[in-house]
Amino acid sequence: MLARNMTIGSIAPADLYAPVAHYLKDVEHIIEDELFSDHPAVNELCTRVSRYRGKMLRPALLLLCAKACGRVNDAHRTLAAVVETVHLATLVHDDVLDDAAVRRKQPTINATDGNVTAVLLGDYLISHAYHLCSSLDDQYAARTIAATTNTVCEGELMEIHHRYDDRLSEGIYFDIIENKTAALTSTCCLLGVRYAGADEDVVKAMGDFGAAIGRAFQIVDDVLDLVGDESRTGKTLGLDLAHGSATLPIIHCLANAPVDIGGRLRAFVRGEAAFGRQRIVDWLESTGSIEHTFQVAREHVQTALQQLTYLSDSPARDSLAAMTEFILRRQF
Amino acid sequence: MLARNMTIGSIAPADLYAPVAHYLKDVEHIIEDELFSDHPAVNELCTRVSRYRGKMLRPALLLLCAKACGRVNDAHRTLAAVVETVHLATLVHDDVLDDAAVRRKQPTINATDGNVTAVLLGDYLISHAYHLCSSLDDQYAARTIAATTNTVCEGELMEIHHRYDDRLSEGIYFDIIENKTAALTSTCCLLGVRYAGADEDVVKAMGDFGAAIGRAFQIVDDVLDLVGDESRTGKTLGLDLAHGSATLPIIHCLANAPVDIGGRLRAFVRGEAAFGRQRIVDWLESTGSIEHTFQVAREHVQTALQQLTYLSDSPARDSLAAMTEFILRRQF
Repeated sequence: MLARNMTIGSIAPADLYAPVAHYLKDVEHIIEDELFSDHPAVNELCTRVSRYRGKMLRPALLLLCAKACGRVNDAHRTLAAVVETVHLATLVHDDVLDDAAVRRKQPTINATDGNVTAVLLGDYLISHAYHLCSSLDDQYAARTIAATTNTVCEGELMEIHHRYDDRLSEGIYFDIIENKTAALTSTCCLLGVRYAGADEDVVKAMGDFGAAIGRAFQIVDDVLDLVGDESRTGKTLGLDLAHGSATLPIIHCLANAPVDIGGRLRAFVRGEAAFGRQRIVDWLESTGSIEHTFQVAREHVQTALQQLTYLSDSPARDSLAAMTEFILRRQF
Repeated sequence: MLARNMTIGSIAPADLYAPVAHYLKDVEHIIEDELFSDHPAVNELCTRVSRYRGKMLRPALLLLCAKACGRVNDAHRTLAAVVETVHLATLVHDDVLDDAAVRRKQPTINATDGNVTAVLLGDYLISHAYHLCSSLDDQYAARTIAATTNTVCEGELMEIHHRYDDRLSEGIYFDIIENKTAALTSTCCLLGVRYAGADEDVVKAMGDFGAAIGRAFQIVDDVLDLVGDESRTGKTLGLDLAHGSATLPIIHCLANAPVDIGGRLRAFVRGEAAFGRQRIVDWLESTGSIEHTFQVAREHVQTALQQLTYLSDSPARDSLAAMTEFILRRQF
């Protein structure tokens, strides 16, 4: 873990977004304005959802990529608000799919208002994301965002399809996280540099950077779901296990555990046997599966860092590098 | 009821869409191509959803409006596919919200694959609708469609907010149906004539036509939910009653019934008393509430027909008029 006063390279975690902190405030206002409704009940729900906006990872990536390539313009602000609103919509629907009770230390919408309201609120958010996107002068972003959400939905459908699948391969696991997570972080970085007028090779490199960051982020997220601390993550954990979603540590353990443990873990994934989270974690530790998973995440972090050589030196680039390294140490 | 061989004016129901039947085939192909996935499980779901495409009311409205103003072009075909895909998405999510088991005589996605898959499939459909829309050259349609889906979601959120509300006013009921239904049918007609190059006054008139048709359609839909025949409608009925959604006949009955019936109906809407559907219908008949509701629908049909005077005489205009009149006689 990273203590509160430790620094990554020369940047403290709280300062990771410093080069774009001012623009992130604008983004919050754009989102608020876009979501405003004449109906108080709708506004109340949107206010509650706005509290899920914690890390602002996706708009920060977009703005830092823009800043690293030149000036942050109005299109960047709008697009940063779009990607965050898309992300908020996926959180609200994910909480329905996972039956999650807590998010960022707040009760989820489905927990307080029921699945029906949460489904509709997610629809409201995604609709407003596209609406905001359609305010731009050209169609490129709208096409890119919609293609990305197509991919995200496909990834989520694949994940659901493979729930309780004790034969899930690493290949399919990576397909799923590429679609459900890496596609959106890739788009954030790609749009950031493209709307800053960067050359095609830089646009391609930063799309790859965003995808690698997304993979690393999701892999660590999946580990935290197993070994994290709810008081730090601020959300319900153990949900992958509860829903039979085999993530990388589980897949590695199934391939490497002795027959008796493998058999029990397989039955657990299929939903045919019940074991406590600690028991599962003990098995994962015994096969070195948590360490293996962090090693894989580390490789994706390295891939991401290599892409940053396409950017010239700047405080924004330093922030992107520090954010990338921080993924391996985050506890939330 | 309308017998199978009866005609409306000079047009048999099966021939209502005749002037655009050829284009509707194109629209089906565009939707199939857009929804195609590399993942067989996703394709299977989309194939099942395609069977919900029955009336094709929204694309037919768009294409007939286009045809009535000139030539049907590629943008119209794309937009007709967009509005139908938006509609399909709302059907899939509505079935989750209503816990509906049957749609167009097929089991619903939530009934066979669970709410989780149905939520994601709805998200997949809406994402593809926006993606298809972003393929057009200009942003006007994307802005209009996204503004419309904002409105639809708001209408649905309002409806949920007023479930079990025995004080729901006619004013709020009309607000809800204006948002959740009339907004989309209005947009269909408006986009049809606008992308045919019609003058602003015609665009405005046909937007009004579509809104009036949508209101009439929803009012009759709400009556069918009470007095319809499941073997004809092909979907689960009585859902408004089951979820405490007071529709126009109920609101009228509550305002006009003697105290004893009013009190029992009020308790029923609040979910505090249980009565069979036939008992409720008897009360509605006793206050003339079904007839009153049809009278209101008739007024909206008249409003719609008046707008058609903005179009010059053509087979497409005749079809629009016949479709409008058919709303009052439909059994499905």
